[in-house]
Amino acid sequence: MPTSAELDATDPLAAFHDRFTPAPPGLIYLDGNSLGRLPTDTPRAIAALLTHQWGERLIRGWDEGWMELPVAIGDRLGEHVLGAAPGQTLLADSTTVCFHKLAAAALAARPARRQIVTDAANFPTDRYVLEGLAQQHDREIVWATPAEAHRAITEQTALVSFSHVDYRSAAITDMRAISEVAHAAGALTLFDLSHSVGVVPIGLDADGVDLAVGCTYKYLNGGPGSPAFLYVRTEHHDQLIQPIWGWLGRADPFAMAPGYVPGPGIARFLSGTPPVLGLAAAQTGIELVIEAGIARIRQKSIALTEYAIALARAIPGIGIGSPIDPATRGSHVALTHPDARALTAELINDDVIVDFREPDVIRLGLSPLTTRFADIDAALRMLQSVSGRSKRANSRSS
Amino acid sequence: MPTSAELDATDPLAAFHDRFTPAPPGLIYLDGNSLGRLPTDTPRAIAALLTHQWGERLIRGWDEGWMELPVAIGDRLGEHVLGAAPGQTLLADSTTVCFHKLAAAALAARPARRQIVTDAANFPTDRYVLEGLAQQHDREIVWATPAEAHRAITEQTALVSFSHVDYRSAAITDMRAISEVAHAAGALTLFDLSHSVGVVPIGLDADGVDLAVGCTYKYLNGGPGSPAFLYVRTEHHDQLIQPIWGWLGRADPFAMAPGYVPGPGIARFLSGTPPVLGLAAAQTGIELVIEAGIARIRQKSIALTEYAIALARAIPGIGIGSPIDPATRGSHVALTHPDARALTAELINDDVIVDFREPDVIRLGLSPLTTRFADIDAALRMLQSVSGRSKRANSRSS
Repeated sequence: MPTSAELDATDPLAAFHDRFTPAPPGLIYLDGNSLGRLPTDTPRAIAALLTHQWGERLIRGWDEGWMELPVAIGDRLGEHVLGAAPGQTLLADSTTVCFHKLAAAALAARPARRQIVTDAANFPTDRYVLEGLAQQHDREIVWATPAEAHRAITEQTALVSFSHVDYRSAAITDMRAISEVAHAAGALTLFDLSHSVGVVPIGLDADGVDLAVGCTYKYLNGGPGSPAFLYVRTEHHDQLIQPIWGWLGRADPFAMAPGYVPGPGIARFLSGTPPVLGLAAAQTGIELVIEAGIARIRQKSIALTEYAIALARAIPGIGIGSPIDPATRGSHVALTHPDARALTAELINDDVIVDFREPDVIRLGLSPLTTRFADIDAALRMLQSVSGRSKRANSRSS
Repeated sequence: MPTSAELDATDPLAAFHDRFTPAPPGLIYLDGNSLGRLPTDTPRAIAALLTHQWGERLIRGWDEGWMELPVAIGDRLGEHVLGAAPGQTLLADSTTVCFHKLAAAALAARPARRQIVTDAANFPTDRYVLEGLAQQHDREIVWATPAEAHRAITEQTALVSFSHVDYRSAAITDMRAISEVAHAAGALTLFDLSHSVGVVPIGLDADGVDLAVGCTYKYLNGGPGSPAFLYVRTEHHDQLIQPIWGWLGRADPFAMAPGYVPGPGIARFLSGTPPVLGLAAAQTGIELVIEAGIARIRQKSIALTEYAIALARAIPGIGIGSPIDPATRGSHVALTHPDARALTAELINDDVIVDFREPDVIRLGLSPLTTRFADIDAALRMLQSVSGRSKRANSRSS
């Protein structure tokens, strides 16, 4: 196996490391799947926005581009990252609020169907939002994994919702296969792309996905709490009505006229005033991913996860909780150990930033634009060291 | 009447002009009620956040204060600006989303009552959200002005919602009187403070207000699309359930456990991840208002609006569309003219930034921390000049 130094030396994306603010000396940051790093362009972009747009153009800024940011950035992301033709993607609100809007719109479009199919292991906010909608609109949740979906989806199913990449295991769900099963039964699909966007190739249009949302502060490096995106397939624009009838989702909002009339196209999925600072930061992060290109990012992502898994397998007591086939794995790696919580704390204490997920997962987020093979090498050496001191051995190996 | 130079020379808040980035030379900005000016502290605060928190602390930033920002800033705003004891206010989401969450929670708490009382002249996003909720939850809107509220509110009323300060006329609604009538009938009140917060004294606790929301990018100078705030009276925390069941509104969110359990206190009104950049900008603007103090701001606000009205009365054809009694007037002034739309365009073309509101209103936003009496003087001289050229005269005078 090549050394980490050899792998870093031949990394075609190595130049992108300098496009991010350096981590503090000695810090190994393997949590870019939770909060991506700060692009060096972002402070400049935000300073220019503050001083030259807000400070000088003031209210005129809204007419000079701010109002268009949600769809303009959405179209860039759609074309280059999501496999979505223009006019189907926008950035606004948190991931949770976007998810709520689309899930509620889907249920309203299938009023006679009582069931929502989702995974009990799905990301918590998705599960909670669906439980809330089920209670508010007299529906029931049918818990099923993606593998069980074909049996769970029936003519009672209104909505099928999974994550594209599982936030714990990194397993990739086949959105096309799920959508085919859902559509055959007359149901709509809503995928959460938070853990795949910017690292895994996505083809929303080609895969027949109806609805999607995702986060911009992970692999898109948009900054803490940056606005999420939502995607609605064009054919649904006229049928779907989202529940938060804000002024910016109305046709001709500045007429301030009586009565809500949903706006044209994707604009009807807006609600309130766009969060301009957060959008500008997200834009900078997204443009870096577009510049690097998803194909090259995916290639490096696979190399990073393969390397991490190879090293981890050599550590006694550590299991691999992610798919072994890279074709079905995202860009993080789940390592299992009975003392995972304590080991994670020790690693963080030693400036190796990873995270713990219940019940026994140490999660390594390998963000291709910022992670070096040497980081993985150093982190797994440290893991070997701290797990060697751990009293309990891992009796499981996968 | 003193000259504008004399008024500016004795203005106790004059020093605050230097706390904001200067407007471009020659620009008269009377639109701080739509988008407040850029505080000089904001670029520094945001640069520090980007470089030293996001860039260096990375994911640890969440444990070191980011997660607490919604309630920490909310408590500062509550104590010094809203008349709200701690633990009842938080910043999150857009004004529209906050308004939706609280209105929906109120309706859910009054399931047997079919009516929502609001004003057909209320700010559009509030009207549209209420129309959406009425349709989704089989309720009806009863349109009434604040003056008609005592007749419109009955035992069928679930929710009463008005703006504290009217976005066109600047008329102040008596929140205490409305809340008393609503409570006598068993209804809840939800006020939109967007056009009063930071300029008009507010006493949510003392006035018996149940629910409130407001915008931070107007008189609080939080920046374009900065996150809104919401207030929920403590006595309602355990009874009200907002509809967007996101992870951050759940008890113990990072357990990522099965099943949504609403969090303790005001935290249950959160949904998604806090928008940290926008929050930091809002915080800087809010702290400036706290530093100046609402009493001094209100005193100057009245002096500014009185001065503007006195000058406007001397212009032929211009009517006053705002209350004449300053006790019932917010910090903007509505001037009426049949050609208001064209006159507004001419003023803006001449670098006097005001705005037009249907059908005949030129709106002057007088933001006490940034507006000089000389700005008003210059703006009204320009209005006199452009309206003198206008072919039509205003036949109305109030």
